[in-house]
Amino acid sequence: MFISVIGEGRASKKTYKIAQEVGRLVARSGATLVCGGLLGVMEAAAKGAKSACGVTVGIIPGSRREEANKYIDIPIITGLGYARNKLVVKTGQVVIAVGGSYGTLSEISFALGYGIPVIGIKTWELRKNGKIDKGIIVVDSAKEAVDLAIKLIKKKKSKMKEKEYKT
Amino acid sequence: MFISVIGEGRASKKTYKIAQEVGRLVARSGATLVCGGLLGVMEAAAKGAKSACGVTVGIIPGSRREEANKYIDIPIITGLGYARNKLVVKTGQVVIAVGGSYGTLSEISFALGYGIPVIGIKTWELRKNGKIDKGIIVVDSAKEAVDLAIKLIKKKKSKMKEKEYKT
Amino acid sequence: MFISVIGEGRASKKTYKIAQEVGRLVARSGATLVCGGLLGVMEAAAKGAKSACGVTVGIIPGSRREEANKYIDIPIITGLGYARNKLVVKTGQVVIAVGGSYGTLSEISFALGYGIPVIGIKTWELRKNGKIDKGIIVVDSAKEAVDLAIKLIKKKKSKMKEKEYKT
Amino acid sequence: MFISVIGEGRASKKTYKIAQEVGRLVARSGATLVCGGLLGVMEAAAKGAKSACGVTVGIIPGSRREEANKYIDIPIITGLGYARNKLVVKTGQVVIAVGGSYGTLSEISFALGYGIPVIGIKTWELRKNGKIDKGIIVVDSAKEAVDLAIKLIKKKKSKMKEKEYKT
Repeated sequence: MFISVIGEGRASKKTYKIAQEVGRLVARSGATLVCGGLLGVMEAAAKGAKSACGVTVGIIPGSRREEANKYIDIPIITGLGYARNKLVVKTGQVVIAVGGSYGTLSEISFALGYGIPVIGIKTWELRKNGKIDKGIIVVDSAKEAVDLAIKLIKKKKSKMKEKEYKT
Repeated sequence: MFISVIGEGRASKKTYKIAQEVGRLVARSGATLVCGGLLGVMEAAAKGAKSACGVTVGIIPGSRREEANKYIDIPIITGLGYARNKLVVKTGQVVIAVGGSYGTLSEISFALGYGIPVIGIKTWELRKNGKIDKGIIVVDSAKEAVDLAIKLIKKKKSKMKEKEYKT
Repeated sequence: MFISVIGEGRASKKTYKIAQEVGRLVARSGATLVCGGLLGVMEAAAKGAKSACGVTVGIIPGSRREEANKYIDIPIITGLGYARNKLVVKTGQVVIAVGGSYGTLSEISFALGYGIPVIGIKTWELRKNGKIDKGIIVVDSAKEAVDLAIKLIKKKKSKMKEKEYKT
Repeated sequence: MFISVIGEGRASKKTYKIAQEVGRLVARSGATLVCGGLLGVMEAAAKGAKSACGVTVGIIPGSRREEANKYIDIPIITGLGYARNKLVVKTGQVVIAVGGSYGTLSEISFALGYGIPVIGIKTWELRKNGKIDKGIIVVDSAKEAVDLAIKLIKKKKSKMKEKEYKT
């Protein structure tokens, strides 16, 4: 299982704490943590995952390995700038957004466009023509977010198994 | 001058008309139209620009030249999928969004993240923590959008000239 | 018609002259010149194309419009680093390589991999298991290169027309 | 330590065996194997690495997780087509090329352009102006290749340590 955690590169203490707890629970559930590899929410999630002995992947925008934060096990060096945001979401089976800047918004958009579920904690709200867009599944805590993420991945897998049986 | 026009690939009649008028006015103002090269708003804007003898650039996601709509003069073949959205906004000096799907939202996010002005007509509204994000400049008509786009480009250029004088 | 001219960013006087002549002949043949937008062979080819009133497209690796040389009409701002090399070759229907560094070699490889014809003047020679690879069509002059490029594009187009007739 | 193994997607039995042995030795040396995630040399190297309980990263060109071969632990889903070749080489500290097609050649070119050492077994030979290019370090066996790769990575690290002492 691969879960992408996204969010701003400069996080408030509160956001940092939530992201760290998300990372810890992702690792405890046995999933690999995928993130953008830099600071803020990305560092917090990776730090949390390492505290529970998880595996962390950081897909960095720049060209220098040292750009990755110190909790990243597997740095993927893209040199693509923020075009790498697409890779961060596609590499996960579910995306959890904690807070977030415009970069995070681009990742949310990509995920929703590709049909990858997005679970949000204190993140962007989207409206069009005055109506709320229902793309982002809003939750209140790290625990709710990770529980739902795992459930969604397992649900998708069991659907796939059924398909294989039928054919 | 380069103006990027972004929006959904399947446009309603009303949105198509607005995008076409935006394209026409972009060309009449002497700017080159940049877009994603596919259908819907992208086709409408390119069609409008050609009706005023403008130049049109289409930065397409796929690998086949034929993917570009028939109003594109210069198809840029990326084969990058929707990672090309970053290029569509960076190649413009200002972005005009007409309507829009999740792909458009990713383009708006990239533009705002890079500090490229975004002018929106009937497009996404962004909120965070219950507050409206002021990134997108909302206008009501094609004329307002293009007038403002040109003004913003000229303002930036004159600032640059001043800087050059100073140094 | 779109012809990509590739080669090193720091060209000797001799190589610069050849690339300039290639650019001039590309424009005179009515084709749009595509290149990487920087200096050396890219600048020379664009300069040559402008001297014959051609249109020039520069697909630049960085994020700043000013990075493009002054003979570029349409700068495409990728911010992808040398991943943009793929776009430079895919956007052309034929590639002409003049001299060349490792960057040029990556472009030649992409073109051959994608089945886009590569015409080379004083460029890389490729061998595998001691045998010369026949991918690059070697010519001696700018004129030969551009004449062949035009011929290959027209040949491909007429084949496509035939296909359309049949179906 | 991260070592990228590159080579053609359809390998002969002989090439497959060499790549498998390279992968095995990479894992035994404690390095993480990075590759393009598909078949041929990529599969062989990943299979070899798994036989020695190594960790395998597959940076795939397409958009579907299932595209990765079954020996990949961490599939990175790029959806960038062969622009992902740049990521395959940048993510390694050294590149080992076994055999190779035009895609491999683009990876060799990127690595040499970025200053990442390339060790080659039965791969491309490069010449310019009739002279052999010395970029690729040619070796005869999997063992030689991996021994040298490890040596180069350690050498670079010790240089970096010295630098840190000085400042």
